[in-house]
Amino acid sequence: MKLGLEESRQRLTQSRVARLATADTDGLPHVVPITFAVNDDYLFFAIDHKPKTTWNLRRLRNIRDNPRVAVLADHFESDWENLWWVRADGKATVYQGESDRLHGIELLKQKYSQYVETPPRGPVVAVKVDHWSGWAASG
Amino acid sequence: MKLGLEESRQRLTQSRVARLATADTDGLPHVVPITFAVNDDYLFFAIDHKPKTTWNLRRLRNIRDNPRVAVLADHFESDWENLWWVRADGKATVYQGESDRLHGIELLKQKYSQYVETPPRGPVVAVKVDHWSGWAASG
Repeated sequence: MKLGLEESRQRLTQSRVARLATADTDGLPHVVPITFAVNDDYLFFAIDHKPKTTWNLRRLRNIRDNPRVAVLADHFESDWENLWWVRADGKATVYQGESDRLHGIELLKQKYSQYVETPPRGPVVAVKVDHWSGWAASG
Repeated sequence: MKLGLEESRQRLTQSRVARLATADTDGLPHVVPITFAVNDDYLFFAIDHKPKTTWNLRRLRNIRDNPRVAVLADHFESDWENLWWVRADGKATVYQGESDRLHGIELLKQKYSQYVETPPRGPVVAVKVDHWSGWAASG
């Protein structure tokens, strides 16, 4: 059964890990796990490492060349009646300003205690989500 | 730390769920969870439902228009020292012949008891993997 917008957003917001899919301008897809935080229709994630070593990361290169992204969270277990997934489709921006960046970091800290101790040192990416969707095997 | 080819393939092979990233010809990314089986450098997944209702699924449309795919499995837990992910990049083909299709279904049955009882009724997709990669927070 399809999940509605609110239910999909809620399940994604509460998930601890998601997968970020990007594509380069030739349509070559890429996917990596991310930690993230959701605020209204924005989803934030950060690069943990120093910017200097990560500006060239494929996910960031892809976003600069092609800002469309898809972010997926799912639940898998041996009882397939309990499977579900939710997805956010949107347009990503790598924050340039430090105050924007710190806003994203703040939301990540509220969700992950690990980031309170060791905040991400790299760029923050904001995804303006224009479509929330999801599916569950049972209601 | 980066994981080598063999270690990446082994971890992906043993994972129960992965995420399939595709992109359409405009570079719009898509990502869904999949069950799958790995045999050497081939990765197989199937569509569970009747072909008639699923030939138009976005993942299949994308693969026909642009066969490049990425498949990700990951491990997430509260101790971030134990995080890891592995990815297979390759080229996907939707099997047309019934014997090819049954070969893929057989591999899926060997991995998932659910498929012994209820085999997938839809198309089988084979991914020829040309790059296995991975990362683990610790060794």
